[in-house]
Amino acid sequence: MFDIKKPYLLFLGDAPDALAAKTARGIHDFRPDDCVGQLRLDGCAVSLDLPDLSPKDAFQAGAKTMVIGVANRGGKVSPSWMKVLLDALEAGFDLAAGLHNRLSDVPELKEAADRLGRALHDVRFSPGGLEVATGAKRPGKRLLGVGTDCSCGKMYTGLCLESGMRARGMKATFRATGQTGILIVGEGTSVDAVVADFISGAVEELSPANDPDHWDIVEGQGSLFHPSFAGVSTGLIHGAQPDALVLCHEPTRTHMRGLPHYPIPDIGACMAQNLAVAKLTNPDVKFVGMAINTKALEEDAAKALLAELEDKYSLPATDPYRYGVDPIIDNLDA
Amino acid sequence: MFDIKKPYLLFLGDAPDALAAKTARGIHDFRPDDCVGQLRLDGCAVSLDLPDLSPKDAFQAGAKTMVIGVANRGGKVSPSWMKVLLDALEAGFDLAAGLHNRLSDVPELKEAADRLGRALHDVRFSPGGLEVATGAKRPGKRLLGVGTDCSCGKMYTGLCLESGMRARGMKATFRATGQTGILIVGEGTSVDAVVADFISGAVEELSPANDPDHWDIVEGQGSLFHPSFAGVSTGLIHGAQPDALVLCHEPTRTHMRGLPHYPIPDIGACMAQNLAVAKLTNPDVKFVGMAINTKALEEDAAKALLAELEDKYSLPATDPYRYGVDPIIDNLDA
Repeated sequence: MFDIKKPYLLFLGDAPDALAAKTARGIHDFRPDDCVGQLRLDGCAVSLDLPDLSPKDAFQAGAKTMVIGVANRGGKVSPSWMKVLLDALEAGFDLAAGLHNRLSDVPELKEAADRLGRALHDVRFSPGGLEVATGAKRPGKRLLGVGTDCSCGKMYTGLCLESGMRARGMKATFRATGQTGILIVGEGTSVDAVVADFISGAVEELSPANDPDHWDIVEGQGSLFHPSFAGVSTGLIHGAQPDALVLCHEPTRTHMRGLPHYPIPDIGACMAQNLAVAKLTNPDVKFVGMAINTKALEEDAAKALLAELEDKYSLPATDPYRYGVDPIIDNLDA
Repeated sequence: MFDIKKPYLLFLGDAPDALAAKTARGIHDFRPDDCVGQLRLDGCAVSLDLPDLSPKDAFQAGAKTMVIGVANRGGKVSPSWMKVLLDALEAGFDLAAGLHNRLSDVPELKEAADRLGRALHDVRFSPGGLEVATGAKRPGKRLLGVGTDCSCGKMYTGLCLESGMRARGMKATFRATGQTGILIVGEGTSVDAVVADFISGAVEELSPANDPDHWDIVEGQGSLFHPSFAGVSTGLIHGAQPDALVLCHEPTRTHMRGLPHYPIPDIGACMAQNLAVAKLTNPDVKFVGMAINTKALEEDAAKALLAELEDKYSLPATDPYRYGVDPIIDNLDA
């Protein structure tokens, strides 16, 4: 499991548009108090309205880790970033990134980090040292988002639920299972990067025994109906032992992500299959709500769809980011 | 994917009993023509009735790979094996093993293999270089064994089916997904050792497009009802896209392997859940038989159980190793 020191200096590099800096934006949206400043290179077209700080100044202001919050084409370390990455290591920073290649595979970075005693966190890769799942019941409550597809809003749903529950004084912790989530909250395990034998075990470790009234909001991954990744989703469900499931869905999508020959599953069939899988490790699991990503819909259409789904499935339906998570939290057992 | 050169010299080491040499025995049982000889150390209490050969003599007799067909306590390379392993590399052999540590992590072996240009095959680990599954339909027919539990006879069932189908002149290839199976047939991928994102993709690669009348017999792993490993089983099912499923079951087991708090699932529920998962990538999948491991039952009890199961589930039921696989093959579509 990754454990990344906070607060952060957010490196935006030479991001040409907002999409390229979405990891930095996610961190700032959900963890503003963890962001000391931003560092931008010439040509950067994005700002998070944080102070622009050099590595030296940011370190003096208390930041501990510089997070690469930008993705370039190819998802690798850009040569144009090297000087500032090395400056950051010299200034005292650890580095964290979710790139396709490892920071530690870049010889200059590895050498500098080793010499200076800094950590290089490559959150797209597994840190190893995992155990096989036991399936044993553990105290604490757990909520998991499950999807009709990949990339349909499970991370945002989880982070919104954590915020909403904390705002009500409930004990809640988002447990990140993917690279962006890990960089946002500073800890977690990229479950699709672990060796297959340890998927469920990694999630058991990520979401350990807790207070009986504490909710772990476990970040969902993939979909039981995605033929490339359903194994990951299955192991994640079994390891999380969820008490509560939230169905996450993007209503304008016409086929499974990356696979035009696979249609999006029927919502009812998707819920039934998730319940069948989840009951193995928690027979009392149930759905508590639906999180619908309505970004592509006008206000009227979004509200009509949510009302229709509430009626059809007898569950609260909301867009967590657009309309909040209260209907789902209201439906949780105390 | 592993691709190990044949034929083999089987290394039995100092195996104290038959169980310790079960990998070597499996190879000899299912691939006798691939076994040139055996190599035993002082204290070895097992023989496969193969010629006892030194590495030099075995290499001259045509063997290409020395397979470590013995497991000691702890599953690691024994110091007492070192001399003969180095002798084998010097004589011209590649080495193959399914141990818990890598042959290539033993410095003397790595140095000798590099110097001499020999391969060290550690089949418990992933060779990497995998792709994410596409879920695209490919020609050829596929049969997969699925279990009520781990270690209930899926590999033996698959190997017996391959033999039985070949004996009838059918085109059939066993596709190994676990370490023992890989050592037996000389190729395959240990699916529980691959990075989780690639489980299904690894099985798609392992069982590629083939003649329309060719059967791949894909080795099953784990169980959808085992909370530690169901993610692996799910990805394996999706990647295999089976046309035919065989339910594998050990009738005297009372709980899931290693987990006394998890009961063995009901056979009917197990078949229903496997069909639900398998239909995602092959809507036409169906069960074609039941493979019951009756080793622990007397003749009368075994035959009564098989008759009872045939009647209850309207499927042929046999113990493949004890009574053959004809009832299952007879039930395959031509």
